[in-house]
Amino acid sequence: MKNALNPLSGFQQLMPEEQVLFDGMVDTIKSVYRLCGFVPFETPAMERKETILAAKGGIVNQVYTVSRLQGEVDFRRKLEQDGSNADIARYFDNTCTDMALRFDLTVPLARFVSTRHGELTFPFRRYQIQPVWRGERAQAGRYRQFLQCDIDIVGNEQLPILYDAEVPVVMANVLRKLGLDSFVIHLSNMKILKGILTSLGLDDDEEITQALRIIDNLGKAGFDSTVKSLSELGSINQVHAQELLEMIISSNDLEALVLKYGNSSPLLKEGVEELTDVYNTALAFGLSPDSIKIDLSIARGLNYYTGTVFETFVNGYRNLGSVSSGGRYDNLAENLGGKRFPGVGMTLGLSRLVAVLKASGKFDVKSTKRESVLVTVQDYKMIDDYLSITTSLRSNGIVSECMLYEKSLPKQLKYADRKNFRFVIIANEEELKNGSVNVKDLVENCQENVQIQLLNEYFQRKSNL
Amino acid sequence: MKNALNPLSGFQQLMPEEQVLFDGMVDTIKSVYRLCGFVPFETPAMERKETILAAKGGIVNQVYTVSRLQGEVDFRRKLEQDGSNADIARYFDNTCTDMALRFDLTVPLARFVSTRHGELTFPFRRYQIQPVWRGERAQAGRYRQFLQCDIDIVGNEQLPILYDAEVPVVMANVLRKLGLDSFVIHLSNMKILKGILTSLGLDDDEEITQALRIIDNLGKAGFDSTVKSLSELGSINQVHAQELLEMIISSNDLEALVLKYGNSSPLLKEGVEELTDVYNTALAFGLSPDSIKIDLSIARGLNYYTGTVFETFVNGYRNLGSVSSGGRYDNLAENLGGKRFPGVGMTLGLSRLVAVLKASGKFDVKSTKRESVLVTVQDYKMIDDYLSITTSLRSNGIVSECMLYEKSLPKQLKYADRKNFRFVIIANEEELKNGSVNVKDLVENCQENVQIQLLNEYFQRKSNL
Repeated sequence: MKNALNPLSGFQQLMPEEQVLFDGMVDTIKSVYRLCGFVPFETPAMERKETILAAKGGIVNQVYTVSRLQGEVDFRRKLEQDGSNADIARYFDNTCTDMALRFDLTVPLARFVSTRHGELTFPFRRYQIQPVWRGERAQAGRYRQFLQCDIDIVGNEQLPILYDAEVPVVMANVLRKLGLDSFVIHLSNMKILKGILTSLGLDDDEEITQALRIIDNLGKAGFDSTVKSLSELGSINQVHAQELLEMIISSNDLEALVLKYGNSSPLLKEGVEELTDVYNTALAFGLSPDSIKIDLSIARGLNYYTGTVFETFVNGYRNLGSVSSGGRYDNLAENLGGKRFPGVGMTLGLSRLVAVLKASGKFDVKSTKRESVLVTVQDYKMIDDYLSITTSLRSNGIVSECMLYEKSLPKQLKYADRKNFRFVIIANEEELKNGSVNVKDLVENCQENVQIQLLNEYFQRKSNL
Repeated sequence: MKNALNPLSGFQQLMPEEQVLFDGMVDTIKSVYRLCGFVPFETPAMERKETILAAKGGIVNQVYTVSRLQGEVDFRRKLEQDGSNADIARYFDNTCTDMALRFDLTVPLARFVSTRHGELTFPFRRYQIQPVWRGERAQAGRYRQFLQCDIDIVGNEQLPILYDAEVPVVMANVLRKLGLDSFVIHLSNMKILKGILTSLGLDDDEEITQALRIIDNLGKAGFDSTVKSLSELGSINQVHAQELLEMIISSNDLEALVLKYGNSSPLLKEGVEELTDVYNTALAFGLSPDSIKIDLSIARGLNYYTGTVFETFVNGYRNLGSVSSGGRYDNLAENLGGKRFPGVGMTLGLSRLVAVLKASGKFDVKSTKRESVLVTVQDYKMIDDYLSITTSLRSNGIVSECMLYEKSLPKQLKYADRKNFRFVIIANEEELKNGSVNVKDLVENCQENVQIQLLNEYFQRKSNL
């Protein structure tokens, strides 16, 4: 019984006041997504196991499947008895379902677009704000369930590169609206590093992937250690590795890159053209040059992204990692077969972002009173009056609540304080009969006698309720 | 591979345009809940199996548990080999987790209040809008995942009966804001039927539960069949059963009820007092007498509700069942042990409600143009101008999108039509250089030439963007 009350480890549980702030952030994110012409989209929590297994980049290790509790109980009982393994296997298959919980929002999007493209108008611009589940080991900052806020723009057979510039612009708007002013979106294009590595003599995908992983870790491992790791791969000598890393670190001299490696790698040339195009278009879309930076060391999503890639770091909180990442993929549904749907998207990790905001004091549940009214009750004979005041406030859009729980006025005032009400209405029988009440303003710390029929006006004037 | 693309049966998949309407409904529900002083609250999708099993009324049959995909694969391989059942049992336990998916929002609330009550201020008024999962057989209108929109008011040790009146008032506000004007909240109190049944000689809980189930089915089974079922129980004769049902059907004569059964049942008297109190208080809270009705045949949640019970039927759609139900419970966390937390709550089944709205033509995705602007692109030389118009509109809160996908103007206009844009901006190089564009209004079916610097003003005047 005691165990039934233990919370599960690895899950975030916000207190109601924190949830108010969190929901406010979700509303902000949604409103910017909508403003920029994205439509809402949701999928069930479950996908077919086969869909998850087929999808590229599936983190099979961390995928949760869904079974029937009754089936599990029956199966466990069966195991106590005798029976052939074939019997047991049959029972086990009966316990399992064909469902697994989604571990990202891309696989469900891919499955949906692959099967329903005939009903969609392209480019399909959707936002999706839903939880995903991963069987992480419980540790600080790693949750088994977290909210992803994705946008993607998906084309049918083709998607112009200009859309690669729109996505980070939208994301920058979101971050600014959330109160983060100081962040940089790091921009690169996978074709560049792949092109350089190929022209340096790496030719199989496995080796390139390994090299990219080493480069992606440059920030943590440092220059010398990265040179060492690269040259240990075999196909790159130390001088080349050193030159390559210097190029990556300076990043801004794309012309020099093309001069040096362009002749041997058309892929690199293409990457540089795309990168320049995306960067300039983002500026034309109004993105401040302070908020975007070309950074060739960005090499995430190796198996997935085929061109543009993004990572977003909050100044002063680089150690928290990227709060918003994404990129361009050649084919959303590559491993599900069928038509080609190229796309570009970014995801915003709200849990991680909340960590950043908490650290910078921007997630403070006690900072402000709620613009709301507590109607206290002094005399139950007059209960209809208290209730009708509450009803009238609500029908005028003023958040309000009638205190029917605590009897003593001091306790009612304490409730108002603990629940962050800004206003408290106090009235006894005589005052109510005279058609007036006392209104306490806990922000301006004053009290006024107000005619009941003028209450709505009064609150509308006093606040932005 | 083909199977990976088959959608799972038993799940609802809204198209993006439908999701827009659905999300609008969720926003409306939230805003009314907030207006009435409820705070948002969310819990993880998973609860401990033990918590779910311990909770009263758990539908164990339909509960989904969560396992590790990798574990399942390993286990299945193990079964191909030899091994003792004890070995297999150990492997199986390793596959399973201690987690199950929630099947309602009450169990998570009970678990949370039981463990965190020290940090809460009572009454705890929370709303919770989250999906729940049930292993239903796939059939029309029954989903394996559906959205519940709950409110509850929970007290610590006690909760005044007046709160039982507030909850249906809030729910009536929600339904009206959702565009439903014609519904009736049916109100009863479990103590009344329990009291009558006891005074008729039923004395064990099992028998009372059976009788309540028979009465709850009155609407479907009809009068004669219900009399027959009741008298077959043994403890009630046919005359008594008939009298009882007549009382229930007339419902309004509570005084007669007390006169007839009150002396032998204090519980019935208490129920009648509470019911009268709740009814009158709901009217004092502003609920129209057309929207609430005493109906003693309401006997749902037999194991759970201990006093007031509610069911809500939409006029003309009674066959769809109750769209919003709830009631008073003596102890939220009864089977989890610890302190007593009485509460009252209602849930709104949004999936079912959408069915009602669809049937009454109020869920029409094509009914209105979106107040939004499509900036078409005629000349890629001028792309920066098109982009900066889009950016400027967005920064003035006007939903807008720049068409970077289709090249031909007719195709761009078709896109605007299919995606329900109200406005389309059309301009060539010359017009842009002269600082003006053409704006097509697809609602008023007219076109105007507008100065670029006056565009924001223009749209703000033309619409409620």
